[in-house]
Amino acid sequence: MVNQMAGKQSVEFQNAPRIISSASVVGPKEGEGPLGELFDLISPEAEFGEDTWEQAESTMQKEALQTAIGKAGLEAWQIRYLFGGDLLAQLIATSFGNGDTDIPLFGLYGACSTCGESLMLAAMTVAGGYADHAAAITSSHFGSAEKEFRFPMGYGSQRPLSASWTVTGSGAFVLSAKGGHVRVRGATPGRIVDMGVKDNMNMGACMAPAAGDTIYQNLMDFNLQPEDYDKIITGDLGSIGSHILSDLMKEKGFDISGRHMDCGIEIYDKEKQDTHAGGSGCGCSAVVLSAMILPKLEKGIWKRVLFVPTGALLSKVSFNEGQTVPGIAHAVILEGD
Amino acid sequence: MVNQMAGKQSVEFQNAPRIISSASVVGPKEGEGPLGELFDLISPEAEFGEDTWEQAESTMQKEALQTAIGKAGLEAWQIRYLFGGDLLAQLIATSFGNGDTDIPLFGLYGACSTCGESLMLAAMTVAGGYADHAAAITSSHFGSAEKEFRFPMGYGSQRPLSASWTVTGSGAFVLSAKGGHVRVRGATPGRIVDMGVKDNMNMGACMAPAAGDTIYQNLMDFNLQPEDYDKIITGDLGSIGSHILSDLMKEKGFDISGRHMDCGIEIYDKEKQDTHAGGSGCGCSAVVLSAMILPKLEKGIWKRVLFVPTGALLSKVSFNEGQTVPGIAHAVILEGD
Repeated sequence: MVNQMAGKQSVEFQNAPRIISSASVVGPKEGEGPLGELFDLISPEAEFGEDTWEQAESTMQKEALQTAIGKAGLEAWQIRYLFGGDLLAQLIATSFGNGDTDIPLFGLYGACSTCGESLMLAAMTVAGGYADHAAAITSSHFGSAEKEFRFPMGYGSQRPLSASWTVTGSGAFVLSAKGGHVRVRGATPGRIVDMGVKDNMNMGACMAPAAGDTIYQNLMDFNLQPEDYDKIITGDLGSIGSHILSDLMKEKGFDISGRHMDCGIEIYDKEKQDTHAGGSGCGCSAVVLSAMILPKLEKGIWKRVLFVPTGALLSKVSFNEGQTVPGIAHAVILEGD
Repeated sequence: MVNQMAGKQSVEFQNAPRIISSASVVGPKEGEGPLGELFDLISPEAEFGEDTWEQAESTMQKEALQTAIGKAGLEAWQIRYLFGGDLLAQLIATSFGNGDTDIPLFGLYGACSTCGESLMLAAMTVAGGYADHAAAITSSHFGSAEKEFRFPMGYGSQRPLSASWTVTGSGAFVLSAKGGHVRVRGATPGRIVDMGVKDNMNMGACMAPAAGDTIYQNLMDFNLQPEDYDKIITGDLGSIGSHILSDLMKEKGFDISGRHMDCGIEIYDKEKQDTHAGGSGCGCSAVVLSAMILPKLEKGIWKRVLFVPTGALLSKVSFNEGQTVPGIAHAVILEGD
């Protein structure tokens, strides 16, 4: 058997699987943001022609997956397995979005880290010889997420400045043994890190310690320095979480401030769009990866990045029962040819 | 790269990973059932010493995982990855049950099929050379599931005879390249099958078509007949779903009635325990696998079984919005030495 283990908790692919295509589908607010012109599809309205936010999110996933598969020059039946997830209870956006494709489904939940989880499992599946083509998909929707985790929007509740804004978007990726210009070199699956934070309106603070833990372990397992990455890109720590991460990494002896980027900060215009700490959600890191990060790797602007989606592991039940909000972060090493 | 694909949608391991230990933890009702004396740990009360049902479920997972790891003669740090899930929104039973172990976590959701999903991903991870030891865990709890999906129990709502009873239990499994007496020969990840059923009090009818689809595909992909399995064991179809499955398989040209068994039917005494159609939940198939199926394979009573946990992909939001209840089933081929 081929040894594909690296260090304490990482995976290093002997034959690096490749991301051969991707797609990003977003709502109107994301389309108006600084990355607007990079997305594949921007809906003029957040309902995507559907009756409910949940169905809107399913439709986004359907569009994103179809677009990614089409860009790869494939048909749905050629995708052997789909790794997918979203933020909603029992993953209904994923279940109702992808049933028609008939692709065998592995449902995943890692909160906003699920984009990383889905990519690493799809990569492990291809590199393990279990599939010629595998796909990964995640989504989030502002309306369905507010309903799921916070307040009915009609209440008009005030949001503190530490709160993030759930991205309405879905990103899909097709992975194969050959093709494309970006490879998945390795991955560091994350563990749960719980520092006792209980504030569900400050997700960045809940998730930053997990991001620090996974990034540190990635550097250790692969014997790398931050300088070996052109960018270290977290999912949705936002402005507050990003500062905490920078401080935590300094405590561990690493200065990442010069090369850290956060998808949640990139996706909205902080001054004009009133999104407070930044964007969040399973869709946030996924659409930024598809629309901005992969193209920069494909064009050679960046050679190697560490992509680290971050998740806050709470539900409204756990929150209302007084539990903490533990974090988790999954890191994927992406390299351009 | 080693080809580990079989047929249209199955995995066939070149070096079959092995289940080297397992554990089952259940509540008092399951302890009083026909399999009672086979479980590792039976709590005298369904709260497991905790304040909430959700925490009780987390404690069950913690106990099950510790017991399984201990039986394997390992420590938690030697488990490279954990594949875990439960039925609750955002998987809080899994997140709060396993954070202390520091094992990197892949959170999974496939409703009651998650036991199959977790076993196949753990097996793929070991056989792909990504881990020396990986663990799989799932759980369900009657109290937390009723709260999550149906009615607050204090309402005393009547349950139709087609309803199943969510098992309070957690099963954990340790997989390795060597050791033990049962191997995972292959797996058939399932696709979503939606026949338009909308009755959340008849899960068996919702899931039976998915079970039939996956079992049929398994037989096709491995070129097997039902007779090649000593048992074909579904997760929690219950009495109604099992009849539907038998009919559906006959339509496809296969008679499985002589060798079909359902974990949901086995776990309770239908006459004495008033559980109607049978047991259900992520914990149902997991504890029956650990307590009854694996020992029979280890003792050579059965040589080869197809283990097919089945899931109903609904949430209370999707149900209340009038959506159907699609099913999914993941099949794992288990062989004794």
